[in-house]
Amino acid sequence: MHLISYDISHDGLRVKLARMLLQNGLQRIQYSVFMGALAPATLSKVQVKLTEIVQDPRFSYEDSVMLLPLHQYSRDHAEFLGKGPEYWDEITGTAHTLIF
Amino acid sequence: MHLISYDISHDGLRVKLARMLLQNGLQRIQYSVFMGALAPATLSKVQVKLTEIVQDPRFSYEDSVMLLPLHQYSRDHAEFLGKGPEYWDEITGTAHTLIF
Repeated sequence: MHLISYDISHDGLRVKLARMLLQNGLQRIQYSVFMGALAPATLSKVQVKLTEIVQDPRFSYEDSVMLLPLHQYSRDHAEFLGKGPEYWDEITGTAHTLIF
Repeated sequence: MHLISYDISHDGLRVKLARMLLQNGLQRIQYSVFMGALAPATLSKVQVKLTEIVQDPRFSYEDSVMLLPLHQYSRDHAEFLGKGPEYWDEITGTAHTLIF
């Protein structure tokens, strides 16, 4: 299970990144925070795409992307106040044996 | 070690929350993502403050706050593309024995 969050100032590049994450099965938890249980091949693909985005001339020196692998502990102890994610089981891959 | 992220539409309430997190020793990783190694008493205090913010009339039904405890695995395998955090050792509490 991974968390990906970002600060990207360019609208078009930010939309491109969000779309890529959704296409690869990540769920949007908050506006700039995505989570999902990624298969190793998909994770590699996402990492390649992230590298491409960071090398895009629209990516500014103040922009950042964080890729955080999550332990099962985080999944089991996540707390949401206010609006929670709609598909927590899909996000956490509860049906899978391996979390990361 | 904890990660706190949020989507809050009201400017004043968002600023209030960000300030509270900084005052309690969390570091800003991205615009709406904070991380830090919180002592149990500080964590309890932050949780109380978060509950107050969620009950504020300016907190909308679309708003959300996520509080995610992080395992040492996440700390050791975090990847930053672009601008990374300035004080990673302070954020992760590398000097401490216990992470959470």
